[in-house]
Amino acid sequence: MKLEDLPFTLAALREAYAAGMRPEDVVREAFRRLDAVADPGIFIHEAREAALAAARALGAFSDLPLWGVPFAVKDNIDVAGMPTTAACPDFAYRAEGDAFAVARLKAAGAICLGKTNLDQFATGLVGVRTPYPAPRNAIDPELVPGGSSSGSAVAVAHDIAAFALGTDTAGSGRVPAALNNIVGLKPTLGALSSTGVVPACRTLDTISVFAFTVSDAWEVFEAAAAYDAADPYSRVLPAPVASPPPPAIRIAVPDAASLETFGDTAQADHFRATIARLQTGGAAVKEIDFEPFYAVARMLYEGAWLAERVAAVGDRLVEAPETLHSTTRAILEPGLGLTAVDAFGGLYRLKELQRRCEELLQDADVICVPTIPTFVSMAEIAADPIGPNSRLGTYTNFVNLLDMCGIAVPAGVRSDGRPGSVTMLARKGRDALAAAVAAKVEEGLLGATGRPRATASAKISDVAADEIAVAVCGAHMSGLPLNRELTARDGRFLRACRTAPGYTLHALPGGPPFRPGLVRSPGEATAIELEVWALPRKRFGDFIAGIPAPLCIGSVSLEDGTSVKGFLCESSGLEGAKDISRLGGWRGYLRMQSQPPAREARAYAV
Amino acid sequence: MKLEDLPFTLAALREAYAAGMRPEDVVREAFRRLDAVADPGIFIHEAREAALAAARALGAFSDLPLWGVPFAVKDNIDVAGMPTTAACPDFAYRAEGDAFAVARLKAAGAICLGKTNLDQFATGLVGVRTPYPAPRNAIDPELVPGGSSSGSAVAVAHDIAAFALGTDTAGSGRVPAALNNIVGLKPTLGALSSTGVVPACRTLDTISVFAFTVSDAWEVFEAAAAYDAADPYSRVLPAPVASPPPPAIRIAVPDAASLETFGDTAQADHFRATIARLQTGGAAVKEIDFEPFYAVARMLYEGAWLAERVAAVGDRLVEAPETLHSTTRAILEPGLGLTAVDAFGGLYRLKELQRRCEELLQDADVICVPTIPTFVSMAEIAADPIGPNSRLGTYTNFVNLLDMCGIAVPAGVRSDGRPGSVTMLARKGRDALAAAVAAKVEEGLLGATGRPRATASAKISDVAADEIAVAVCGAHMSGLPLNRELTARDGRFLRACRTAPGYTLHALPGGPPFRPGLVRSPGEATAIELEVWALPRKRFGDFIAGIPAPLCIGSVSLEDGTSVKGFLCESSGLEGAKDISRLGGWRGYLRMQSQPPAREARAYAV
Repeated sequence: MKLEDLPFTLAALREAYAAGMRPEDVVREAFRRLDAVADPGIFIHEAREAALAAARALGAFSDLPLWGVPFAVKDNIDVAGMPTTAACPDFAYRAEGDAFAVARLKAAGAICLGKTNLDQFATGLVGVRTPYPAPRNAIDPELVPGGSSSGSAVAVAHDIAAFALGTDTAGSGRVPAALNNIVGLKPTLGALSSTGVVPACRTLDTISVFAFTVSDAWEVFEAAAAYDAADPYSRVLPAPVASPPPPAIRIAVPDAASLETFGDTAQADHFRATIARLQTGGAAVKEIDFEPFYAVARMLYEGAWLAERVAAVGDRLVEAPETLHSTTRAILEPGLGLTAVDAFGGLYRLKELQRRCEELLQDADVICVPTIPTFVSMAEIAADPIGPNSRLGTYTNFVNLLDMCGIAVPAGVRSDGRPGSVTMLARKGRDALAAAVAAKVEEGLLGATGRPRATASAKISDVAADEIAVAVCGAHMSGLPLNRELTARDGRFLRACRTAPGYTLHALPGGPPFRPGLVRSPGEATAIELEVWALPRKRFGDFIAGIPAPLCIGSVSLEDGTSVKGFLCESSGLEGAKDISRLGGWRGYLRMQSQPPAREARAYAV
Repeated sequence: MKLEDLPFTLAALREAYAAGMRPEDVVREAFRRLDAVADPGIFIHEAREAALAAARALGAFSDLPLWGVPFAVKDNIDVAGMPTTAACPDFAYRAEGDAFAVARLKAAGAICLGKTNLDQFATGLVGVRTPYPAPRNAIDPELVPGGSSSGSAVAVAHDIAAFALGTDTAGSGRVPAALNNIVGLKPTLGALSSTGVVPACRTLDTISVFAFTVSDAWEVFEAAAAYDAADPYSRVLPAPVASPPPPAIRIAVPDAASLETFGDTAQADHFRATIARLQTGGAAVKEIDFEPFYAVARMLYEGAWLAERVAAVGDRLVEAPETLHSTTRAILEPGLGLTAVDAFGGLYRLKELQRRCEELLQDADVICVPTIPTFVSMAEIAADPIGPNSRLGTYTNFVNLLDMCGIAVPAGVRSDGRPGSVTMLARKGRDALAAAVAAKVEEGLLGATGRPRATASAKISDVAADEIAVAVCGAHMSGLPLNRELTARDGRFLRACRTAPGYTLHALPGGPPFRPGLVRSPGEATAIELEVWALPRKRFGDFIAGIPAPLCIGSVSLEDGTSVKGFLCESSGLEGAKDISRLGGWRGYLRMQSQPPAREARAYAV
């Protein structure tokens, strides 16, 4: 493949590097593509020489996870030796060190191409609130590029950078992904360190990741994520757990009355079609009234959190307001009049709304929403710099306030040919789950390249980072008396399957509840039916606390060759038990029990 | 025993009720004691008739946990049919319903005697900021009674009420306990509902419990605690787990340089003596620099949180300031000038300090501090209404901001005869742990009664509500290679002991790490040495995720007749293993292994 035809996906880059391609050539090709696009608005600072030097310094091809992968960085994130402007030239400084996340990515072998344009101080979702030339939307230059991480999204959409860092406070990591037909991953707050990031709203900010595919975005996220003791908002999140798909995911979606597309029927139709695809794939869909989420969203710019943006800009708003973009200034100024009483009033109101949203999300694993309700044109935003911007945040503004994570994903095209994007949202720490569901609907060409999407890899687990898969073989199975022990702890059904051969099942004496005991019995040919459930790790202790002897939680080998945690029984506890293995499982035994005592049943009498 | 000699502890009341005493007599005796004390400042509203009616309505003696127990309620908490004043007559209203927690206590059989005095709007730690007569300190009327829950503490100290509800935002549930020689339990935020409570700082407020003993306070807390969907700050906390004492508790204390008693050497000496008692009892004491905790404490009245108090008082501060106590007004007024930017600045600063405090508390289970740094006299507070009040909050103001729980406990008397009080503080949800440690130092007479303390009951578990006890018998034991699997998850060593007879231990093939397998083997006489550790429930899932087959977590019977979770081995996994039971445990086997291969060792070859 000629270099100019090489898509900058991680898989394609690795294959080419393994075949002898050099990182310098990739860096030169990246800037050749930038020059070909001829958009002076994408980068605020191009680091052509520094990138080439970094490429040469990599040495021999290695197994570093991002070896030789070119990336771009939003210009509110520090890269050592480069200016940080936040799109405010008067604010600019030369960064002495890398932001924590940038340092992690460089250590993983990635090469920084430069710093990208943004809505000034990351305040905006349109991408045109910048004193530099605004980046052009990669798909259709009559549309806004989306923001605030405009340059980063456009650089990926044009295949200049294999991935790019954005930031996300209100949707800045998702809205431009939808507008440029790429993936935008907004991690759980604190999963990526904010050290070296210019704040917008410190309690809500996170670095985000743009890439062509869910799989690539996830690999970058994993490379960048680490606890940073220097960032008070950094959190320790459990590492994702690999486990086989596919679960019966429970998805909440806005109901017909509260789905808002501002009259864009193509967007509504595409969203409904995507939900139908998920249902066909086995997902359970629950419609909910979205009004409480919209109420949270409105708090971000109409309420107390505006003061966080004012705090981030500091004295500039009062002492040098002329150094701010006129729209940015108009948005921030009302924040000067908010009192501390207003701020706490906002916190109380948020807490109440959080409670309402939690209630709506009971029994749901993820929320699926359109990433944007509709598109915004350059002409519309020129006519009204604020209204259309606000509309773009319909499905993004509430997410950070509710401490959720999310990922925007291209899900094919709309009936009018524009890119269709949905976002999967999940509770904090369940980033892997959101990504796994997003991968199920990922579809269409890569960004603005016209290149097809390779078959999605299956690297992302359907068990969330904060879950544990557990095999149950008795009264804990769906519909049986102890199943509530799982569901009351937010357990999710993953699938029904069987053990590997070599297990026996025994009806234990005592009860109710009546219980079986599963015992590994090497040499026996029998395999036993069971169900695999995902249980939140933090609830596992509660769950296990209630399990009586002789039952244990050990490791159970499944028919597909994998192993999961699951119920076992102490062999010493089998006294007085009946071997019911030949009935195939507990349900078979229960069916037998409910029949009149015929010959078959008597065969299992002790 | 004559009724006037009956101490109103739960045990004494139950015994007397079982012997035929009637609740009406107890209510009459309570008010007789109140009349004898002749302090018009204790109650704002006496409910003599309502209490008698409630007593009569109880019917026959039952096993309701608080049947016939008289209690008092701070007058910022609603009791149906009684006025709520918050010590501001102009604010008063008649409550239509009970506060959520009051309703729980009444349902448990408790009888409300009335509403008690407080520092107006719960703003103060002295108890004299009230337009009503201030309650007199029950121990020494020349001292302030302590506040803001002044009347509740004094009512308990005089044995008028068996327990009383206070509230605690900055120490109002602990400081008056220290000043009146009783127990003050400040639960984890959200454990007791705030529905029906007049807010002080909504993000920091909790109902608190005063009683004579740790055990009584704990029983009341358990009866009152329940999730309340109507209170957005209500939290689900795990139920406490019963388990035998005593653990090797790790206690952090202020180091010599940062222990602050404002020159009160008797207080410092008493505190150090109490710590020495804990050490003698097996606790591991770690001295830490307390400056970050003091820095958090200062934020409460000098920073953004003042705005919460302003929000709670509402328009009154601007529109009817003359209806406020002059000191309360002087404290609140600066809050009117705080901006929303100040508020978020405070939140950022708190987050940074929280991180520093967390680092200091690594490897500590509880903090022990003096409840108050020194005493404050009525004369001192008359001369300066604010300074001495602030000093009283030295060891309490930071607790709610750091989301910790705590319990103030009488720990004998100081060298000058004044009551000695320390407070045990723990992380959120570890209320039972704090109470269990407090019970270890509980000492001295009951309140102001001159009556001796009965031997403490052992009802409170040393395993915290959010922990699980797990027995380990191999490489997870102290000093062995896998012990870090426990310590890295904040596991705490509880004790070394043995299984009940009827277990065998087997050295499994494979390794390193080398592992044994414990198997229940009924009929065998052998008992196996093991260690019991407490592991946070939320980390149990992580812990179990890393345990390989054939090991399981099941139930292990101990020599003392109790049962805990613990390591077991699938019987099918014993192939190739050596039975090492007669060595008594894994350490015996390791000692054997480290010796030259002599006759003894060979005896265990396969």
